[in-house]
Amino acid sequence: MRVLGIDPGLRNLGWGVIDVQGARITHVANGICHSDGKEGDLAFRLVSLHTQLTEVVRLYAPDAAAVEHTFVNKDAVATLKLGQARGIALLVPAQAGLTVGEYAPNAVKKTIVGVGHAAKAQIDHMIRIHLPGVQIAGPDAADALAIAICHAHHMQSAGRLQAAVARAQA
Amino acid sequence: MRVLGIDPGLRNLGWGVIDVQGARITHVANGICHSDGKEGDLAFRLVSLHTQLTEVVRLYAPDAAAVEHTFVNKDAVATLKLGQARGIALLVPAQAGLTVGEYAPNAVKKTIVGVGHAAKAQIDHMIRIHLPGVQIAGPDAADALAIAICHAHHMQSAGRLQAAVARAQA
Repeated sequence: MRVLGIDPGLRNLGWGVIDVQGARITHVANGICHSDGKEGDLAFRLVSLHTQLTEVVRLYAPDAAAVEHTFVNKDAVATLKLGQARGIALLVPAQAGLTVGEYAPNAVKKTIVGVGHAAKAQIDHMIRIHLPGVQIAGPDAADALAIAICHAHHMQSAGRLQAAVARAQA
Repeated sequence: MRVLGIDPGLRNLGWGVIDVQGARITHVANGICHSDGKEGDLAFRLVSLHTQLTEVVRLYAPDAAAVEHTFVNKDAVATLKLGQARGIALLVPAQAGLTVGEYAPNAVKKTIVGVGHAAKAQIDHMIRIHLPGVQIAGPDAADALAIAICHAHHMQSAGRLQAAVARAQA
C-alpha cells in the first residue's frame, strides 16, 4: 500500500510518499509544491498548488492520503490562508478517489517519536531511522513524510484490530 | 460582461450571476452549493463543492468573478473551515481562467447601500432594487449577488478611470 502525506501551506506545501508492506515502510519520494506571492493573486496561487499536487498524485498513484490538521490560533489572517491551502491539500487526493486521513500535529509526533511534544530535530531523526538514506527536500517535506508514517501506523493498528475482531467472531 | 459573485462557506456556498452592460445590470441566476456533514468527510465535502461550483461556471460562463474576503476572528476552527471552503471558491473560477476579485464585507455593503455597516435587510432591499423581480435562493445567494454587483461597480469605476486617463493623454 502506498501512502501520501501532505503538510499544507500556501507558500510551501510539503508532500511525502511511502510504501507500506506489513511492518516494513520504504521511502518513495518527497518534495515541496511552491506558490510564490509574485506568481500573481491568491486564486492563481491555489490553481498552481492544485496543478502541482495533482501531478504528484498522478505520478506516484497513492492508495491512501493523510493531511496534517493544524491551525494557528492567534492570527485569523494566517489561519484563513492556511485553510485555503488546506482546502487544496484535501481536495486533490479526494478528487482521485482516495480517503483522506487527518491527524493533529501532536498525534503525528506521538506516533513517530512516542511523545506529543517532540522537537522538530527529534522528528527529523526518527524519519531518517524509519526511512534510511532518505533525502528530504525541506522541513515541510519532512513533516509530510511524518504524516504518511503516522497514517501507515494507524491503518495497520486498525487492520490488526479488524483481524482480531474477525478471529474472535470466527 | 457576465460577473459571478461567490459567498464562500463549507455548508452553504452562495453564488450569483449578473450581466453588466454599461450602467445596466440584470440578474442571470443565483443559488447555493450545499455540502452536508452527513455526506462524508471534509475532503469529500470539498470535492462536492468543487464539482457543484465548476458546473455553475460551465453553465453560465462568466467573464469575471469575485469572492467575499471575510474571516472569523474569534474561533480558529471556524476560520480554518471557512478558509477551506474559500480555497475552493477561489480555485474554481481561476481554473476557468477568470481573474478573481476579493472584497471585504464592508466594501460590499458600502457599494450596495452606501455605508459599511448596513444591516442584512438593507442589503437584501438594495439587491431587489438593483435586480427587480429577482428570486433569491437564500441569504448566502443574496450575499453572492451583492458581491457580484460590487465587483461590477468597481470594474466600471476602473474602466471610467482608464478612459479618462486615455482622453487626458490623447
